Amino acid sequence: MAPRGGIDLGGTKIQTVVVDDDNRVLGEARHPTPLTGGPQDVADAMAAALREAAEAADVAIGDLGGVGVGSPGAIDAGAGSVGQARNLPDWDGVFALADALSRQLEGATVKLGNDVSVATDAEVQLGAGRGARSLLGVFWGTGVGGGIVLGGKTWDGEGAAGELGHVVVKQGGAKCPCGRRGCLEAYAGRGAMEARARKRHDEGEKTDLFHLMKKHDRPRLTSGIWQRALEGGDKLAIELIDEAVEALGTGVASAVNLLDVEVVVIGGGLGLRLGEEYRLKIAGAMQPHLFNDDRPPSIRLAALGDLGGAVGAALLVA
Amino acid sequence: MAPRGGIDLGGTKIQTVVVDDDNRVLGEARHPTPLTGGPQDVADAMAAALREAAEAADVAIGDLGGVGVGSPGAIDAGAGSVGQARNLPDWDGVFALADALSRQLEGATVKLGNDVSVATDAEVQLGAGRGARSLLGVFWGTGVGGGIVLGGKTWDGEGAAGELGHVVVKQGGAKCPCGRRGCLEAYAGRGAMEARARKRHDEGEKTDLFHLMKKHDRPRLTSGIWQRALEGGDKLAIELIDEAVEALGTGVASAVNLLDVEVVVIGGGLGLRLGEEYRLKIAGAMQPHLFNDDRPPSIRLAALGDLGGAVGAALLVA
Repeated sequence: MAPRGGIDLGGTKIQTVVVDDDNRVLGEARHPTPLTGGPQDVADAMAAALREAAEAADVAIGDLGGVGVGSPGAIDAGAGSVGQARNLPDWDGVFALADALSRQLEGATVKLGNDVSVATDAEVQLGAGRGARSLLGVFWGTGVGGGIVLGGKTWDGEGAAGELGHVVVKQGGAKCPCGRRGCLEAYAGRGAMEARARKRHDEGEKTDLFHLMKKHDRPRLTSGIWQRALEGGDKLAIELIDEAVEALGTGVASAVNLLDVEVVVIGGGLGLRLGEEYRLKIAGAMQPHLFNDDRPPSIRLAALGDLGGAVGAALLVA
Repeated sequence: MAPRGGIDLGGTKIQTVVVDDDNRVLGEARHPTPLTGGPQDVADAMAAALREAAEAADVAIGDLGGVGVGSPGAIDAGAGSVGQARNLPDWDGVFALADALSRQLEGATVKLGNDVSVATDAEVQLGAGRGARSLLGVFWGTGVGGGIVLGGKTWDGEGAAGELGHVVVKQGGAKCPCGRRGCLEAYAGRGAMEARARKRHDEGEKTDLFHLMKKHDRPRLTSGIWQRALEGGDKLAIELIDEAVEALGTGVASAVNLLDVEVVVIGGGLGLRLGEEYRLKIAGAMQPHLFNDDRPPSIRLAALGDLGGAVGAALLVA
């Protein structure tokens, strides 16, 4: 079989890989996601990042057996289009992403999937969830995504299951970037957390977060910036991350009470960056809300790390 | 085929039916659930109620093709036992219910299932959920139960999925009868609602609820008492029921955001008693929390009414 490409399109970064038959990574590249422009600019950046991964793998684009893409938004896999990707610039409408990429990648076959579903599949097939009968993937990053695998199969409901970030943790609570109130993502999404940090900083509260952001030349409060602020004992960062952990514990426990899954896998930019210490903290925050608290699910860190989404995308064309 | 028996064991009442091959009800009976004693007393009352249904159906107990039981608590269908049925008197341990019933029912084959699962199955096979690809059953009664059917099959996870009543709607919120905080059932379970009503009544708040309870000779605030109080414009009843509806809207919408089911069926003692008006109110309370608010699930009242649980139990021996 030919090597395959995988692209993980995130709100902050575009991660690409080229993998071999055994899903081993031969080459990878990461580009920032364009913050301005529109879908075509994002497609250009995706193609460029994949070309870079192919170069690192010493594979010609024309020799790829196919390219899989994990994307946010409303995916129409049949049509190869993505709509309403609200974490991406000017992407409220529907854009024919598969065609746009194929044109720039020497006519390669391009298949689209949901970013969270492909990352969850990767963990089930190759990572921390191998052999699990049922699993909930928790992707803690710009937003909070949920991937559901039941009886070994992805559950996507009527096409959009797994909106863990919009499970309500507090009726009448904080405003979420989605416009609703009290969603898990309103407390734990990095986007919402940055907005709260900025508001409180503007109101005069002390924090190193924005100083660190400038110092490290980041356009946003990335997971690395949050981690540095935590390590430096920044009070506001600690408070907001603690609130996020509390909300994650509540929302994930609610999902477990409903689904009674065997395994919970924690990934996403913040999840991976904060690692084992926060896996334990999230497990601790779940415990008081678990109905079957004598047999909590096995709570694990995503094993494929930052590359899980891209490797999972490449599984779409396996 | 022989007629079959079905027993729905609830915290308030024991409902029995005898059905024919087409699941038509030939006879039925209802007894109050013993509030004191222990599992054996409950089993005695169950057997008596089934005998009464058989008599109404003009069927001899010895001619039944089997008896199905929908029970709360931790069901071990293989062992025929029920444990931790905390809404039933002195039933914290494990009790061999199938054997106890069989002894009293001329050696009939007795099969046990989860009360909520069998009621959900009945709605999917015979009721409001016929033909649905995926469905969430919401049983609003003494507690709040959830039944999950995905891809036409009951989803029970590691044995205890569907704890919709213990989806958290308000982090740090009201104390639930389960001992945790902020669960849906803490606001919408009839048990929790009665406790709150009693506390506020004891503190001097005006309400007709307990007067109506005495007048109609009920040991508890039944669904009928709540309905009468609402119709009479009782302020405390209206406030508590409105809170329950708000919590149901939040918790059910969270479940829909996670599972993206096609159909939601609302049943249970209160759900059925309050009917169409409250189906609409619950749908309205869900709407602000639905992530895909342009295509809410179809929200329907349970079609099998009060007998759904018992008819579903009889399906266990079909």
